Amino acid sequence: MFQTGSQTLRDFNETQIIENIKQWLGDTSPPSPFGIGDDCAVVPSDPSAQSLISTDALVYGKHFDESIRAEQTGQKIVLRNLSDIAAMGGYPKYATLAILSGADLSIDWLHEFYKGVRETADTYDLKIIGGDLCQIQDRQFQAVMTIVGTATTPILRHAASINDSIYVTGQLGGSILGKHYDFQPRLSEGQWLAENNLASTMVDITDGIAKELHFLANESASLEIDLESIPIAQSAQLLAKKSSETPLQKAFCDGEDYELLFTLNHSIQSTQFESDWKQQFPQTPLTKIGTIVEKNPLGNIIDSVSKKSIDDLKSFDHFKQK
Amino acid sequence: MFQTGSQTLRDFNETQIIENIKQWLGDTSPPSPFGIGDDCAVVPSDPSAQSLISTDALVYGKHFDESIRAEQTGQKIVLRNLSDIAAMGGYPKYATLAILSGADLSIDWLHEFYKGVRETADTYDLKIIGGDLCQIQDRQFQAVMTIVGTATTPILRHAASINDSIYVTGQLGGSILGKHYDFQPRLSEGQWLAENNLASTMVDITDGIAKELHFLANESASLEIDLESIPIAQSAQLLAKKSSETPLQKAFCDGEDYELLFTLNHSIQSTQFESDWKQQFPQTPLTKIGTIVEKNPLGNIIDSVSKKSIDDLKSFDHFKQK
Repeated sequence: MFQTGSQTLRDFNETQIIENIKQWLGDTSPPSPFGIGDDCAVVPSDPSAQSLISTDALVYGKHFDESIRAEQTGQKIVLRNLSDIAAMGGYPKYATLAILSGADLSIDWLHEFYKGVRETADTYDLKIIGGDLCQIQDRQFQAVMTIVGTATTPILRHAASINDSIYVTGQLGGSILGKHYDFQPRLSEGQWLAENNLASTMVDITDGIAKELHFLANESASLEIDLESIPIAQSAQLLAKKSSETPLQKAFCDGEDYELLFTLNHSIQSTQFESDWKQQFPQTPLTKIGTIVEKNPLGNIIDSVSKKSIDDLKSFDHFKQK
Repeated sequence: MFQTGSQTLRDFNETQIIENIKQWLGDTSPPSPFGIGDDCAVVPSDPSAQSLISTDALVYGKHFDESIRAEQTGQKIVLRNLSDIAAMGGYPKYATLAILSGADLSIDWLHEFYKGVRETADTYDLKIIGGDLCQIQDRQFQAVMTIVGTATTPILRHAASINDSIYVTGQLGGSILGKHYDFQPRLSEGQWLAENNLASTMVDITDGIAKELHFLANESASLEIDLESIPIAQSAQLLAKKSSETPLQKAFCDGEDYELLFTLNHSIQSTQFESDWKQQFPQTPLTKIGTIVEKNPLGNIIDSVSKKSIDDLKSFDHFKQK
């Protein structure tokens, strides 16, 4: 992606690059003032819903490298942000995309990147309405997307009650083998859970369930987890064979699952709910992994068999050395 | 700001740093779900106005360096974004702030940075409702802010008509001597121009007026500029003495003025408008610098004396070598 042979950003001025980006995005960026081209983008209000806003960055060397194609990188920045909207039970509406890049970035790479952005945005009816373009050091690239969505009944964290069942969608761990840039954000599932008042609390699993489970605990509630029930992805099994970690550790601690972790309101019957889910989302695995229990002095997360705390299962952390 | 002696981001985990940021922001970040702490922030809709959205990045080594204090850096990222809202005649409401930083960043520096963010946000009634935190290479720091505002009658670019007068606020050039991080975004002025239907088109001057003037031209309109009238800042005069550029060149081409450049609707009398302005904004200099004229085949921007094109006055460009 960083080159000396072919054309790079250094061969263009800012206006030319922005013109290119507008062309590459086509209808995905509406004409100014509703898209790129003025000091701000202008969007009409939707008085029937609340707005959801989230910001998420994609960093070269951290969230992707040259082992994935430019188009897949563009796809990934959009999908990551959509997953945050899914975790609230919302509908994606529009986004801004800031590009911070070395001047040695290949213009062809950037074109392919925007192809991925456009195709993914189109699939989920998301408009790209603005952004920024900044030169940073050579051989560096970062994209920062801010996404705006709507929801009439957003599902928050920290609202779980005793006896709520704990569920996850999909299978966990090993996403580095491909899922980290190629997944379906659980938008329909989140919207269905929100609109039918099924989930009491919900998050998306970006940093590993070992970390995300803590977000469901609150002052009066701990989580009892059945470790045997954790749905382990095949890629986590594969990777475990080549590492010192067990498949369960990988399922617990690998980042970037982009699955939903939620609690089912205890007033709703699990068996009925699970059967409704199968009818609504036959393609999306659903697994009950535990129950919300009264605050346990041992910790937030308790192994349902040994009754010991599993709070300190290490998980992906952005700064601290493991 | 990057240190080995004192505590750096490397000494904390992500959750601890985010907890710190929440504390540093205090009331400037409302409690979750209206601020930091969930997958998205949730904000109520304002059905009486349109939404304005803009994204702007601040890059270490480009927009600031260690010659300005951390607090001034935090101030600058907020002010820059407010200036974009001012250029639409809007009201700032809330913002997200993504931090991309090397793990060797001093935690004290980041604390001071957020002090500047908070104080400036409070001054302009802006809430910080979310963000992201990402590790990048050591000795690198970038902040990306996305700001959301409202406006009932946003002022766009490209809507100038023949005989509209062209105005700028303040004085231009030499902002590197201090104004680039310490200025008053022209919010009240922009709002007044918008709400009284005075300005036909408006931008804020971030990359030098030589570049921004082009945004006021359109398919049927060029600009005649009286070069003698350009308000040159004292700091531009000072810097010109030490360089090969004239004060006028510096006023035309230096970046980061953060003043408003707008056209007055030709149905409104200039003299009356200027006298109203003085009453409304006695502290804000206003200068008429030219007039919108019929499309001139010579170019977008014409020197009103020589009648020659001054389209190719060089201005600040982010990628291309000058």
